[in-house]
Amino acid sequence: MQNFKPYYAVIFTSTQTVNTEGYSAMAQKMEMLAKEQEGFISIDSAHEEVGITVSYWESLDAIKNWKQQSEHLQAQLKGRNEWYSWYNVKICKVEREYEFKLS
Amino acid sequence: MQNFKPYYAVIFTSTQTVNTEGYSAMAQKMEMLAKEQEGFISIDSAHEEVGITVSYWESLDAIKNWKQQSEHLQAQLKGRNEWYSWYNVKICKVEREYEFKLS
Repeated sequence: MQNFKPYYAVIFTSTQTVNTEGYSAMAQKMEMLAKEQEGFISIDSAHEEVGITVSYWESLDAIKNWKQQSEHLQAQLKGRNEWYSWYNVKICKVEREYEFKLS
Repeated sequence: MQNFKPYYAVIFTSTQTVNTEGYSAMAQKMEMLAKEQEGFISIDSAHEEVGITVSYWESLDAIKNWKQQSEHLQAQLKGRNEWYSWYNVKICKVEREYEFKLS
């Protein structure tokens, strides 16, 4: 892996409460705002028994700034008060990667 | 974070072809086999537009051994030949984490 520039992944794994009111709109809004943050790279999200959202960032500072973004702070509070029964956040350094694409 | 022992995450993100025959059984089997591997910690999986499976491992060696496990190698081949139109694998070092649990 030559010229591989390490970057960071935030793995957000969660389970929800029965109260989902407003969740979807907030999730969409947060995704939109995250994309506007300095250092944001990309985001993937899927939900079954657990929800998994992985966002990718250029630096730990970019992650910290997003964690402290004011509207995101409000969303985090609402998440803990209303939507999530559990969540876990892992900050990871992506060390290498490979890809397959159907030709 | 005192006494935090770093470990590793493999983020497998994928999109599928229209051919899903046999996929679910194989996915279940691979999950069962992964759990038997030395160094395996846990696995989370969810599918929407993209499928995201994140497995956690004690070491890079544990990940390498799982990648080369014989039945897993066959599953990888079938995945590329039949089920996946795209996938990306990221090997990450989990540097820290935090958790919320509804009290």
